[in-house]
Amino acid sequence: MYGPTPSSPPRRNYEITPRTPSVSMSRRPTSSIKWNALTVHSQFGYYMKEGMRTSVEAILLVQEHNHPHILLLQIGNTFCKLPGGRLKPGENEIEGLKRKLTSKLGANSPALVPDWQIGECVAIWWRPNFETIMYPYCPPHITKPKECKKLFLVHLSEREYFAVPKNLKLLAVPLFELYDNVQRYGPVISTIPQQLSRFQFNMITT
Amino acid sequence: MYGPTPSSPPRRNYEITPRTPSVSMSRRPTSSIKWNALTVHSQFGYYMKEGMRTSVEAILLVQEHNHPHILLLQIGNTFCKLPGGRLKPGENEIEGLKRKLTSKLGANSPALVPDWQIGECVAIWWRPNFETIMYPYCPPHITKPKECKKLFLVHLSEREYFAVPKNLKLLAVPLFELYDNVQRYGPVISTIPQQLSRFQFNMITT
Repeated sequence: MYGPTPSSPPRRNYEITPRTPSVSMSRRPTSSIKWNALTVHSQFGYYMKEGMRTSVEAILLVQEHNHPHILLLQIGNTFCKLPGGRLKPGENEIEGLKRKLTSKLGANSPALVPDWQIGECVAIWWRPNFETIMYPYCPPHITKPKECKKLFLVHLSEREYFAVPKNLKLLAVPLFELYDNVQRYGPVISTIPQQLSRFQFNMITT
Repeated sequence: MYGPTPSSPPRRNYEITPRTPSVSMSRRPTSSIKWNALTVHSQFGYYMKEGMRTSVEAILLVQEHNHPHILLLQIGNTFCKLPGGRLKPGENEIEGLKRKLTSKLGANSPALVPDWQIGECVAIWWRPNFETIMYPYCPPHITKPKECKKLFLVHLSEREYFAVPKNLKLLAVPLFELYDNVQRYGPVISTIPQQLSRFQFNMITT
């Protein structure tokens, strides 16, 4: 009747270590600020060469104060995003998401990188044109959408070790903060609570 | 990776017959108009006697113009609702939804009533207080929510026969009309497109 129960979201049993930004890391905030203008061009070139892009993003659930929270990467003081990114042409979705999670959240020491457990796909969004707007369906009469973004549940174990670049913050944001807050989080992140509503969470009683 | 594929939404292969309202049917629009005031009282009495109510509603998918549509019951010219309703105390969710679907959409002849195939639960909404507002999670610090509403996919076969009371209309509303239209359809119905986004629909090519 219900979907599978995700493993209990661990309480704040994750550690976040600031990571000295590498060259590519230190460039990320800049490119994010200029994101709109940049993607329109690069998307077009990519689309002409490779066809529709697929991006994959992770919903990492943790528990705080007896309420589920989602981990978001904050860039600057306002823009929040789910960890993940675009696949390489032909790349497997699960393997690509693991690669992206390790590059965004993994520590420099491979021994500390979590064994990412990718769970089920909870949402698919479509970008019909070379614009930022996405829809939770492929709009009628669109035969060649430009991007497809898939959101996966990622099950964390009781204790995880994350490392993020110094210029990013990893935030645990409660579902009640995301819900109905499209102004702050955008249409994709703000409807995650509705997409998770069918799951029963095994809360750890505090 | 994806959820199960719901059986292909049939094209307009359903028939709708106006049904002469029975005594209880003809009273429904009146009670719906007074809904706010009535439920506050009856909910309180019910809650004190029986505890939290559970209601079940159906998402019936059909295909028109190569795009998924959802069947909604329209009362008067504005208010739309999913077919379904509240369970009796102790009633099984699946059996209760079948009972409600037959009472709302079934023909008078039992031979014509569809063999309802109740699929998976796609959303759960919680009403924490004796008010109409619902959330897609049980808000923190709420230990005794007053109502829990579950939305189930219901798979239709290629051809179905529905009958609705004369004072109601059965509408097939496209996902693109529901999406981002909380003003017209309310928070529960307007986010159905996001909850269905993970499914692949087997469209019948026209």
